[in-house]
Amino acid sequence: MQQALVEAAKALDADEVPIGAVIVAGGKVIARAHNLVERLNDVTAHAEMMAFTAAADNLGGKYLKDCTLYVTLEPCVMCAGAAFWTQIPRVVIGATDEKRGFINAGVKLHPTAEIVTGVLEEECSKMIIGYFKSKR
Amino acid sequence: MQQALVEAAKALDADEVPIGAVIVAGGKVIARAHNLVERLNDVTAHAEMMAFTAAADNLGGKYLKDCTLYVTLEPCVMCAGAAFWTQIPRVVIGATDEKRGFINAGVKLHPTAEIVTGVLEEECSKMIIGYFKSKR
Repeated sequence: MQQALVEAAKALDADEVPIGAVIVAGGKVIARAHNLVERLNDVTAHAEMMAFTAAADNLGGKYLKDCTLYVTLEPCVMCAGAAFWTQIPRVVIGATDEKRGFINAGVKLHPTAEIVTGVLEEECSKMIIGYFKSKR
Repeated sequence: MQQALVEAAKALDADEVPIGAVIVAGGKVIARAHNLVERLNDVTAHAEMMAFTAAADNLGGKYLKDCTLYVTLEPCVMCAGAAFWTQIPRVVIGATDEKRGFINAGVKLHPTAEIVTGVLEEECSKMIIGYFKSKR
């Protein structure tokens, strides 16, 4: 999650909502990404989406069956839907997102997927809250 | 929807699940896309995702506020989540997808979005069912 926070900080530097994601397989980081919605002018360019695509590219296979996603904010419905398709078996979340997160929306990941929440939650939350405060 | 079916047929020719999407704004087609999951080796490369990105690129703005999406199969949770972020106000669907579609999953589009189902449903269904039959 520290690595995902490094990615989130890159988003912050680029004046994007500071969300970062990292995908790990076999103890190695195989993808790192941050939110690029503004830079790519694309509302679908969330950190997780970029990380899924990069990880599949890195592995050379469509599915992320032995991977873990670390993401600083709870994925939205779109990203959770993408996680389902990737069959990623483990999703580790920093801050929760009660309003736009997939958990309260009732969206399910792959049936066997493990979800861990609250990892470095305070650091992850602080970065996002700080960003929105600075925008007011 | 005829145009979306033309896109779906391109997917079929490329041995992809035959799903096509078209986005219209001001009476003009501003994006056309088909499923590219196999070609891009990316489970997130659904027709709608590609169309959203292309449409935003075409318009030069992130949001698709005056657009209509025509798609041959009911969007999945991921694509519906993406549609939410685009703020697209109208989604026209060919065949429904009871198993993987967003409607039965309880996912909501943007609150003001209009959803129309059953447009050229038979043609859209036939193409997808035919594809899966040919794979058995």
